[in-house]
Amino acid sequence: MYRTNTCGELRLSDVNKTVTLAGWVQRSRKMGGMIFIDLRDRYGITQLLFDESYDAELCARASRLGREYVIQVTGKVCERSNKNINLPTGEVEILASQLVVLNESKTPPFTIDDNTDGGDDLRMKFRYLDLRRNIVRRNLYLRHQMAFETRRYLDSLGFLEVETPVLVGSTPEGARDFVVPSRMNPGEFYALPQSPQTLKQLLMVSGFDRYFQIVKCFRDEDLRADRQPEFTQIDCEMSFVEQDDILQIFEGLVKHLFKSIKNIDFAGDFPRMTFADAMKYYGSDKPDIRFDMRFVELKDIVKDCGFSVLDEAEYVGGICAIGCAGYTRKQIDELTEFVKRPQIGAKGLIYVRCDNDGTFKSSADKFLSQDLLKKIAAQMNAKSGDLLLILAGANTKTRKQLGELRLEMGNRLGLTDKNVFAPLWVIDFPLFEWDEDTQRYYAMHHPFTSPKAEDVPLLDTATGTVRANAYDMVVNGVELGGGSIRIHDSHLQHKMFELLGFTPEKAQAQFGFLMNAFQYGAPPHGGVAFGLDRFVSLFAGLDSIRDCIAFPKNNAGRDVMLNAPSVIDNAQLDELCLKVEPKK
Amino acid sequence: MYRTNTCGELRLSDVNKTVTLAGWVQRSRKMGGMIFIDLRDRYGITQLLFDESYDAELCARASRLGREYVIQVTGKVCERSNKNINLPTGEVEILASQLVVLNESKTPPFTIDDNTDGGDDLRMKFRYLDLRRNIVRRNLYLRHQMAFETRRYLDSLGFLEVETPVLVGSTPEGARDFVVPSRMNPGEFYALPQSPQTLKQLLMVSGFDRYFQIVKCFRDEDLRADRQPEFTQIDCEMSFVEQDDILQIFEGLVKHLFKSIKNIDFAGDFPRMTFADAMKYYGSDKPDIRFDMRFVELKDIVKDCGFSVLDEAEYVGGICAIGCAGYTRKQIDELTEFVKRPQIGAKGLIYVRCDNDGTFKSSADKFLSQDLLKKIAAQMNAKSGDLLLILAGANTKTRKQLGELRLEMGNRLGLTDKNVFAPLWVIDFPLFEWDEDTQRYYAMHHPFTSPKAEDVPLLDTATGTVRANAYDMVVNGVELGGGSIRIHDSHLQHKMFELLGFTPEKAQAQFGFLMNAFQYGAPPHGGVAFGLDRFVSLFAGLDSIRDCIAFPKNNAGRDVMLNAPSVIDNAQLDELCLKVEPKK
Repeated sequence: MYRTNTCGELRLSDVNKTVTLAGWVQRSRKMGGMIFIDLRDRYGITQLLFDESYDAELCARASRLGREYVIQVTGKVCERSNKNINLPTGEVEILASQLVVLNESKTPPFTIDDNTDGGDDLRMKFRYLDLRRNIVRRNLYLRHQMAFETRRYLDSLGFLEVETPVLVGSTPEGARDFVVPSRMNPGEFYALPQSPQTLKQLLMVSGFDRYFQIVKCFRDEDLRADRQPEFTQIDCEMSFVEQDDILQIFEGLVKHLFKSIKNIDFAGDFPRMTFADAMKYYGSDKPDIRFDMRFVELKDIVKDCGFSVLDEAEYVGGICAIGCAGYTRKQIDELTEFVKRPQIGAKGLIYVRCDNDGTFKSSADKFLSQDLLKKIAAQMNAKSGDLLLILAGANTKTRKQLGELRLEMGNRLGLTDKNVFAPLWVIDFPLFEWDEDTQRYYAMHHPFTSPKAEDVPLLDTATGTVRANAYDMVVNGVELGGGSIRIHDSHLQHKMFELLGFTPEKAQAQFGFLMNAFQYGAPPHGGVAFGLDRFVSLFAGLDSIRDCIAFPKNNAGRDVMLNAPSVIDNAQLDELCLKVEPKK
Repeated sequence: MYRTNTCGELRLSDVNKTVTLAGWVQRSRKMGGMIFIDLRDRYGITQLLFDESYDAELCARASRLGREYVIQVTGKVCERSNKNINLPTGEVEILASQLVVLNESKTPPFTIDDNTDGGDDLRMKFRYLDLRRNIVRRNLYLRHQMAFETRRYLDSLGFLEVETPVLVGSTPEGARDFVVPSRMNPGEFYALPQSPQTLKQLLMVSGFDRYFQIVKCFRDEDLRADRQPEFTQIDCEMSFVEQDDILQIFEGLVKHLFKSIKNIDFAGDFPRMTFADAMKYYGSDKPDIRFDMRFVELKDIVKDCGFSVLDEAEYVGGICAIGCAGYTRKQIDELTEFVKRPQIGAKGLIYVRCDNDGTFKSSADKFLSQDLLKKIAAQMNAKSGDLLLILAGANTKTRKQLGELRLEMGNRLGLTDKNVFAPLWVIDFPLFEWDEDTQRYYAMHHPFTSPKAEDVPLLDTATGTVRANAYDMVVNGVELGGGSIRIHDSHLQHKMFELLGFTPEKAQAQFGFLMNAFQYGAPPHGGVAFGLDRFVSLFAGLDSIRDCIAFPKNNAGRDVMLNAPSVIDNAQLDELCLKVEPKK
């Protein structure tokens, strides 16, 4: 060992000990005949003192140390006269008697500090320096803790971690696969798994009973802040369970993580909300319930008011922003601009101010009488001083717009504190989604999700209304995970593929192994998968999952530090029987 | 839940309870008016009793259950009259009052039993049925335990598990990479990592201090029993350490696994043997020291004996097989055939029988006098009744042959008990290996391994003799892991690449990120990586790593169950700007 102690552990009780520390020069200050150096390692910072009157030559050498030099120092632990109570080691310093420079350092391209001057691109290119910053390293420590506690919890309940392969078969249903050419099987390709979904189901057929895996998954999609080409799932599956069993066990996991890592307790069970209610009251299948501000439907009240925007709308709904009647023209214009942004797409915004004198002021005064406004306010449970924000239009679209407006108001009103956590289960998802472009149904979760038993008769007659045994875990408007009770009957699975427009041949070609497996005694089973990256981001209060990943890729899917991807030798391409053909 | 209890937990103390079990029909027997069914799940087997006199209709339904049907049964726990003491649940049975068939099963293509009738290919195709066999599932349970205990041990010592990316850059040095075409960067490829070597070194530059990861690695090599295209490493790295620190900490890991999983204690430290001694005494860098039978060098004794095979040989050495003087002609012929097999490649075998009357009988009697044979026997510490086996030829080659013969004799003499474990560290590996074909040096471990400080002056003058700070953990002749103290000085790293025949440009193109990182204060660091698959195989007493992998690939790199790899759509190829070109 190059050290007797780390830079984070010496205290007053160590005074007079002779110690050796090793680490990085964080900062150096000269004062009279003395040089003070902050020596940094993962565990903390300890002050070193080089005293000219004690050893002039050593002090001269210390004066030449630059930022980020790696040094090894031996000396005596002394009590500091000028204590730093913000630092655990702040009561002591090391009076240095020996100094070894283990490595020099060029001047870093940005400062290694919580508030660095480095831009995103520079920090990505020199990620190994960015990772020296406490703020970044703390996220990875949190990630380690969360993964470890997840394993501890699941192990204690008899779950076995089973590694499934990374080189699997391509499954065109779903997102785009990354593929891997096989040299030993020329012209053929492996795919990287988008999730171990089918393999974990096979493990249930095998009788593993309780499986989990913290596992890398891959999707070749265009990227954005919360997406990476490779991401990590906490992937779980159980046999002989019903939906409620899964919800209980994995609610337990979420609670265990909150308790063990953030020391947060939740009283009672997490709320459960149907997908229908989530859309009705929040316009989102991942509602942020840190604050209320539920939608109130107004169509019945405003019908035939003479305002075509409302009369012709399929849906009219609003939210009540408590205490916001005093919003200025400018503030209301901002909100109107917000909902009219192309990403949101509303035509306009109707507001109603509930003034303190009991009167109302609305952008649609022309059509809405005081009487009608009063009725609206009553329906929305508004008090004097509140501001009502109303959108009208097509059903699903308008709800989504109103949902975005609700989140915006939550942020403006400071109702989205990152240190407050509001988890819930969203349940009873539809089994199918209709796609206008391809004129077919798609599985809302995936083709292995089971319909609710009572809805099975509707599969042919009212396909779109069939509800699934599917559920999502949502915290603060973030979908942390989701899952379903799976189909374990090969006939029902066949039916499902048929409804999804698979020919029997195509179903067999792609999922034959699973359908075959179901013929040999598949147990009832179900599971869930959590996104570890999002989970860590939520705990760390991050805006992007990138900051909890050691070596993330940028939006072009590049690792700018490694310069990957890159071109490969022609010899390598030849071995793979491949040729690169630029697009015409 | 479909059950109140598992099939492994009911005991005499549960008698009279009403329980519900779910599982697979393992076996069904009719006796008079009764049907006995062994119900199986992951946790055990419980006997069900269907009694005609109790419920004739239920009994009739039970009679129609086939092997591997999935059923749910409710009934009362009763004491068995005919107890099975070999089964933990063998004192009770369930008198069934309800039966639900959860799923039917076709007749499995092989029996689900420890001794199955299924061949390898069939079992691989129906791996999900093969995994139902206790013997296979036990290996995966062991794997889970070993990974979990590894994490527990390393976490307790402050190691952080950091996930490194799976999509990285290609590094042509070393084995062949699997590559992944990038759609977003047409004509460019990611590579799958052969190990996170450079990334974990960057984490040390970042100050992570103690890193580990249980991580999938990939090599596109031709396969054999102990190789898979994807395999799992316990990958570790530490800063501010010397070789001895690493050996101690990871010897601790190995001991922890032996103790926590197999309840085996080792007294004292593991032996450490230099590479030179390993080659000298065992002809292998991974000696099996469960038994002694060290090589004895005989060149000095036999020189000028007149037997050209010995006179002209660069090396003459032998092993003493205790008590084997009675070997028959046939047995000795077998040994001769063994060493002459093309995989071994010896020209022949010389034996010396040490007869009980004090005389010697040798295949080279013509050249070797009784006096000389006596000298040989004395040198080899042989007693009456022993058999000496001698090989002669080129130095390194002959040692390897003698090493193989030694292992064969160990097996024949029953000295390689799978329940005996003999670990050791092999240290002081050479830094370089000379390759005759390409007429250049290759790094014996990898290009980041540091030379011993005292050997640095030899880098230019006696390159081949330079020893590395490199070490392997060997148990029972299996290399479980290995590692080294790394180079942390960018000049020395440059020098290393130069000696390996890299131009500065090529070194920069391939490893520029690492060499750059070394200029910003890299700490001294080193690490180790263990092969988890081999580790589990060793603990499980398996001959192939395949049996401790849930879904392994065959020797052609195929997953015959998933039918991967396979051809992909032309549309997909077009998106990737690739064309398949069959080899001419």
